[in-house]
Amino acid sequence: MTRPRIAIIGGGFGGLYTAQHLHHAPAQLTLIDRRNFHLFQPLLYQVATGGLSPANIAAPLRAILKHQTNTEVLLAEVSTLDPAARLIHFSDGESLSYDYLVVATGASHNYFGNAHWEQHAPGLKTLEDATEIRRKVLLAFESAERETDPQRRQALLTFVVVGGGPTGVELAGALGEIAHQTLKGNFRRMDPAQAKIYLIEAGERILPPYDPSLSAQAVISLEQLGATVRTRTQVIDIQADHVRLRHQDQEEVLPTHTVLWAAGVQASPLGKILATATGAELDRVGRIKVNPDLTLPNHAEIYVLGDLAHCVGPSGQPLPGVAPVAMQQGTYVAQHLLARLQGQTHPPEPFVYFDKGNMATIGRKLAVVESGKMKVSGFLAWLMWLFIHIVYLIEFGNRVQVVLQWGWNYLTRNRSARLITGANRLPGSTHNQDKIAR
Amino acid sequence: MTRPRIAIIGGGFGGLYTAQHLHHAPAQLTLIDRRNFHLFQPLLYQVATGGLSPANIAAPLRAILKHQTNTEVLLAEVSTLDPAARLIHFSDGESLSYDYLVVATGASHNYFGNAHWEQHAPGLKTLEDATEIRRKVLLAFESAERETDPQRRQALLTFVVVGGGPTGVELAGALGEIAHQTLKGNFRRMDPAQAKIYLIEAGERILPPYDPSLSAQAVISLEQLGATVRTRTQVIDIQADHVRLRHQDQEEVLPTHTVLWAAGVQASPLGKILATATGAELDRVGRIKVNPDLTLPNHAEIYVLGDLAHCVGPSGQPLPGVAPVAMQQGTYVAQHLLARLQGQTHPPEPFVYFDKGNMATIGRKLAVVESGKMKVSGFLAWLMWLFIHIVYLIEFGNRVQVVLQWGWNYLTRNRSARLITGANRLPGSTHNQDKIAR
Repeated sequence: MTRPRIAIIGGGFGGLYTAQHLHHAPAQLTLIDRRNFHLFQPLLYQVATGGLSPANIAAPLRAILKHQTNTEVLLAEVSTLDPAARLIHFSDGESLSYDYLVVATGASHNYFGNAHWEQHAPGLKTLEDATEIRRKVLLAFESAERETDPQRRQALLTFVVVGGGPTGVELAGALGEIAHQTLKGNFRRMDPAQAKIYLIEAGERILPPYDPSLSAQAVISLEQLGATVRTRTQVIDIQADHVRLRHQDQEEVLPTHTVLWAAGVQASPLGKILATATGAELDRVGRIKVNPDLTLPNHAEIYVLGDLAHCVGPSGQPLPGVAPVAMQQGTYVAQHLLARLQGQTHPPEPFVYFDKGNMATIGRKLAVVESGKMKVSGFLAWLMWLFIHIVYLIEFGNRVQVVLQWGWNYLTRNRSARLITGANRLPGSTHNQDKIAR
Repeated sequence: MTRPRIAIIGGGFGGLYTAQHLHHAPAQLTLIDRRNFHLFQPLLYQVATGGLSPANIAAPLRAILKHQTNTEVLLAEVSTLDPAARLIHFSDGESLSYDYLVVATGASHNYFGNAHWEQHAPGLKTLEDATEIRRKVLLAFESAERETDPQRRQALLTFVVVGGGPTGVELAGALGEIAHQTLKGNFRRMDPAQAKIYLIEAGERILPPYDPSLSAQAVISLEQLGATVRTRTQVIDIQADHVRLRHQDQEEVLPTHTVLWAAGVQASPLGKILATATGAELDRVGRIKVNPDLTLPNHAEIYVLGDLAHCVGPSGQPLPGVAPVAMQQGTYVAQHLLARLQGQTHPPEPFVYFDKGNMATIGRKLAVVESGKMKVSGFLAWLMWLFIHIVYLIEFGNRVQVVLQWGWNYLTRNRSARLITGANRLPGSTHNQDKIAR
């Protein structure tokens, strides 16, 4: 008797946790991803700001799953899905049949109808995004060193982060550290501490899902690192050398060459493909509305989870697109599938998210953490943040390296991964250099 | 009184050592490089084979020199030189005047008139080269996993390294380890140990500058790692899916999708510019023939060193293009300049290279080392290799990280930096995938 095939699309937290919890399942698992590694996305901003190397936060999927003999990894891109025939079609023309399908392809940036902003304001979702942001930030300082006009220099030293969620807060904090601590003494013609860092948030306050007291604490911490927080401020245009902002009907142009986008996400395009093929409903950011057990209406053999799923929480709101939701959903789907493989037919308990809390770190030694009624900020919160991230990194064996790298960075206030790789175009200024790198 | 300006072009071993040994010089130093980091090139092959991350072997020049107050770092590309006016012109239209000029821009690959081979057979000189080779090698295994035709699969699992010098030997050894140890158990449809690794050398033996007994030992070590050494074999053509070899008038076609080039270097193009401007002579690989004190004939204020210099050694042969030569020349030039800045006018002693020996490592626990009459191979040589490299890495503070990373890799037989970044084109086979990555 052949074992049923479970195909899992996406090697992020949702897909990987599903696969790992099916370790002993009497099934053939195929984990499909277009990248060969799992990425620990919560630390991606540390790569973007030179604190960690890409390999510190990424691990080859094959290496993670090499002892899991019921599982194979496929490096491939899905082009379409045929739920009626239970087939996955790949962009190279091949296909794969399945008995159960788990779709966890996540989300990418959302420019809310202004896709042309992307060229000036990269988002932070992939390792390539992170090294591109690192390049952009470091080249801005390099150009400022060579710029003699004070206004142009200040524009080069102006960094704008759009979006006051955890990623935006962490990016702005890290930029503050870079300008005031890491690069101290590195330049001769200008002082990197002249850099201005703005965190722009359209809503009432930064870190909106957190308690207001923590949002206020985060503002204080960011200001200590030299960043300016602007709430109730909308971005209405982004160009190569400026952003246009609106605050209470007042418009303002901010000259800058470095805008980073952390303002919103949009579900992976596979959501739409799946919705069209199955008749499932999408929400306004492209997430698929799932049943309480994470299956699709009319397709009990298809599960959708993580950032791709619109899964309603106890408050009636969809669950947030954070790693713990995807991890818990992955574990839940695996248990659900195991029960079905063992012949259990009665309907399962719905998925319930256990919210352990929220946390964001703001530079060296500062963080905000809330869990249940507990609200902590400052150094203690930072230690908690550190501990939690180290515990989760154990999953793929990079923990020792990252801890040591962090210890080293912490002691030396250094960010040794400050490499400008790829093409070396200096931004703005009269100093344009093409094709420098090779 | 203004201090004289010393301009140093190139932040490799030669340029950086010159700058560092002028720490207390009564001069204004400007170190010019088109990259923002110094690269520890002897370990580049470890990045290419996933053992280390780029940031482990590169350090920002500004960080290395931040406490050296008489020195500024300029991220810029030199377009031309005007020795008569003592001016450096940059590609952005700016220029810099100097009193003394040190040129140490190194070398790149030499395809000996077959520049079109480069697209199929990347060389290993930059971090981008290293991550490109890493991508190519890992994608070949991925494609082999999906290829069902045995012949095509074997072609995907065939790796050809051209050039039997230390870099070629180290690459072939690392590929052997990857196939037989690192990737063990990572695939389900094929065994990575089926990989065939060829090291092609046109000359009589690999590691030609070493004692013949060590060359023979290196062949044995490589064969233990599953690599095949072919000496007296010439590469006569390289295409996307094969190489054509000639051995004693016998031609052979080897189907392969992965050819790595380690066969020869050519001096940086700045050599030709400098030679044209000063009337200095070039050798056949574009190196500038320098005086015994490393200055140029007719231009006592210009020094050329490292891989760009053709500096005759005691045997009458030019000194080899290795890191110790560049380091010692950098130290020598700095001392020479210091003496001149102090008003010393009598001609200096010529540069003498103190050859501490040669070493190459062949995988985990194996190396060959010779120093004077001492010849060592095996595990002891590997420990010596490790010790020496760790001592030199101290120069830029990455020592601790690299030692820990190596310790970790050694214990786990792992290479955690096995990331396929950049575009994800699968080589050869019917499985071509464009634009997978982003």
